[in-house]
Amino acid sequence: MGGSEREPARVFAGALVVTQDAARRVVRADVRVDEGRFTHVGPAAPREGAEVVDASGYALVPGFVNLHTHVAMHPLRGIADDRDLAGFLETLFAVDARRTEADVEAGARAGIAEMLLGGTTSFLDLYYFEDAVARAVDALGIRGFLGWAVLDPEFTTQHGKPLDNAAAFIGRWRNHGRVTPLVAPQGVYVCGSETWLGARALAERERTLVHYHLSETRKEVHDHEAKTGRRPVDWLEEIGFLGPQQVAAHAVWLTSQEIGRLGQRGVAVAHCASSNLKLASGGVAPIVELRAAGATVGIGTDSVASNNSLSMLREIHLAGLVQKNHRWDATALSAQELLDLATLDGARALGQARDLGSIEVGKRADFSLFRLDHPTLQPARPEALVSHLAYAANDEAIDSVFVDGRPVVEDRRLAGGDWNSIRAALAAAADSLWAARPG
Amino acid sequence: MGGSEREPARVFAGALVVTQDAARRVVRADVRVDEGRFTHVGPAAPREGAEVVDASGYALVPGFVNLHTHVAMHPLRGIADDRDLAGFLETLFAVDARRTEADVEAGARAGIAEMLLGGTTSFLDLYYFEDAVARAVDALGIRGFLGWAVLDPEFTTQHGKPLDNAAAFIGRWRNHGRVTPLVAPQGVYVCGSETWLGARALAERERTLVHYHLSETRKEVHDHEAKTGRRPVDWLEEIGFLGPQQVAAHAVWLTSQEIGRLGQRGVAVAHCASSNLKLASGGVAPIVELRAAGATVGIGTDSVASNNSLSMLREIHLAGLVQKNHRWDATALSAQELLDLATLDGARALGQARDLGSIEVGKRADFSLFRLDHPTLQPARPEALVSHLAYAANDEAIDSVFVDGRPVVEDRRLAGGDWNSIRAALAAAADSLWAARPG
Repeated sequence: MGGSEREPARVFAGALVVTQDAARRVVRADVRVDEGRFTHVGPAAPREGAEVVDASGYALVPGFVNLHTHVAMHPLRGIADDRDLAGFLETLFAVDARRTEADVEAGARAGIAEMLLGGTTSFLDLYYFEDAVARAVDALGIRGFLGWAVLDPEFTTQHGKPLDNAAAFIGRWRNHGRVTPLVAPQGVYVCGSETWLGARALAERERTLVHYHLSETRKEVHDHEAKTGRRPVDWLEEIGFLGPQQVAAHAVWLTSQEIGRLGQRGVAVAHCASSNLKLASGGVAPIVELRAAGATVGIGTDSVASNNSLSMLREIHLAGLVQKNHRWDATALSAQELLDLATLDGARALGQARDLGSIEVGKRADFSLFRLDHPTLQPARPEALVSHLAYAANDEAIDSVFVDGRPVVEDRRLAGGDWNSIRAALAAAADSLWAARPG
Repeated sequence: MGGSEREPARVFAGALVVTQDAARRVVRADVRVDEGRFTHVGPAAPREGAEVVDASGYALVPGFVNLHTHVAMHPLRGIADDRDLAGFLETLFAVDARRTEADVEAGARAGIAEMLLGGTTSFLDLYYFEDAVARAVDALGIRGFLGWAVLDPEFTTQHGKPLDNAAAFIGRWRNHGRVTPLVAPQGVYVCGSETWLGARALAERERTLVHYHLSETRKEVHDHEAKTGRRPVDWLEEIGFLGPQQVAAHAVWLTSQEIGRLGQRGVAVAHCASSNLKLASGGVAPIVELRAAGATVGIGTDSVASNNSLSMLREIHLAGLVQKNHRWDATALSAQELLDLATLDGARALGQARDLGSIEVGKRADFSLFRLDHPTLQPARPEALVSHLAYAANDEAIDSVFVDGRPVVEDRRLAGGDWNSIRAALAAAADSLWAARPG
């Protein structure tokens, strides 16, 4: 997957294309890919020099953007269920102290495999040992936006100063095609203003994103207000941190003023509905209000320790239903809007609106082929396809997945790794980590 | 699937068995099936006269019970999304008038196929033309508890009096092994006391269940109270309807008194979280309180018109997360309890606690084999398996499914029908019905 072999041009002929273009057209079309980008979307693509794939039995859908996860936590799925965030974190922190760069890489490979098999082609990660995650991204062919976690030195288990580690990580990976390194302050509970502003300065210097946790639980908001006299968003504004090129994960417990501030400052939000619900945060993130205030909102699965799945299809279904019920409004977050969150809006949040998120000429060829004969896409009527993607389809409906026009999943098999080896390495990592559970 | 061929005895050797027995053991064991029932669950099953299946790579899990659906509505998936119940019903009623027994059968076959591929081995249905559903049950090998919808004669599109139709349907199918016919009052908005009590009398005479919709929306409760001076449960108690052998679907909008009444009368509840949320009913069914009051609660998907999936794995994930968040309590509905709802409790609600719901000697051999190497079951540690089933697994992890010890899904293919024919018949039914959409 290193990118050294040249990929042939391809024409996907007669696919049912979910374009996600400005008109949100769903059309029968040929899609041509040359050198990793779409060069034709419409009738009768030129076929010269291209491999022609009969795509008439498939829906061609933009790759999903998972806007918040910790992919290396894969060995920890099921380790701390049915507990609130405090009990959950007690287990996680005990296990965390045992982590090695090798088991982080094993976890990342398994997590990326699950994401690719679910049609995710880009993800935004927050963790440490991110070089190991970057190697897994490189091997398996996904696109990774990898945030090195920074926090105040007294809280970290990292060797050296986290901000220096983040800067070094960015330096090592800044020229890799599918890896975009960035800096990721963990949250107000472990980051003081020096860490926040240091992260912002690093990101400006390196022109990277900043990714962080924000107002996930009532306790976090309450504790910060008790300590500083300000709620987290108000405080981040006051210290001069907020700005564009930032993605805040969770953003559940916000006042109207904070919502307006995030919109005004151009901060994007990664909505993590399953994780918030499973940890019983008690709130429902104000997605409709954030969008109305001008904030870009995408969808994150969070990690398998709290979700416990990396499926974007499951996540948009759940996110949509929860918004509708919470607002007593069945029209809130329509099927089309849910698909937008998982594609176009995720791409925009990553600063990739020109390159990712839709099937349009000039964009990178990141997409999936869904089998139109799959049970969860029936009846396979074009006018129902977006609804089926939002509310019914499961990952098994995805036959193959492409990143930069290169197949990364074919007939539900990974192109860049052997699943049984990935699984065995994950099991070995889990053996060591589960032994460290408290109690 | 008619049951005429004799099925060989089988030993599933070395499976990881999710027994759902009284101790909820998850153990490596041999499972022997003779004449459709489990005859050995434990080490070293006798192998005489049996086909031996190496099940060491599988989890052997009780078949799921889908406690409320309208399986024949399959052609209507995606026809009325993102609307509240009133707008949803406007479309549904317009289309309903066009339904034929043939398209009901086509829909039922597709719906049953989706359920079997998701590990559902029993379902409770509410519709009309149930003979067509019964034929689909017979062909595909699932176990169907089929409720003929009854309502006051002035509201129905049925030919003849609905209660007479229900009685005749019960008479035609009462001796079929896998079809259990029953009577199903639609709800208080179309059933007066004569219909309710007539249904109860019919069920007592025929020793069948009664299945009905109950307190799904605020409007339904408000309208009934305005008309009768009583909330629905209080009113059903007053007219002498409530009693055991009843399954009420939804049960969202209940007072504490009504919850206590349902428990006291032995009424079971089918919880339909996805459907309630998608139609923005605004409430969250009081599952914890119903169970505390002694009511048996199972899980229903409702139909694909409102869910839009028949996956029980998706449904328990969502049901669990919503209860936790709504109650600000991450311990509410643990993974084990969610699996119980989908198996043991569903079986009890159907009056089948002696025959269905767990892997124990003497019970009917309704079960699935989940691939322990599937991505969504990693890490595949025995102590995490119940968590993975509740929160992570998707339908693709299911390799094969058995009902009465007979394979109904093998290697993700239906044993009792050709998927492409089922799909084509569904598409034809959808062509005719979608043409009848209003507006």
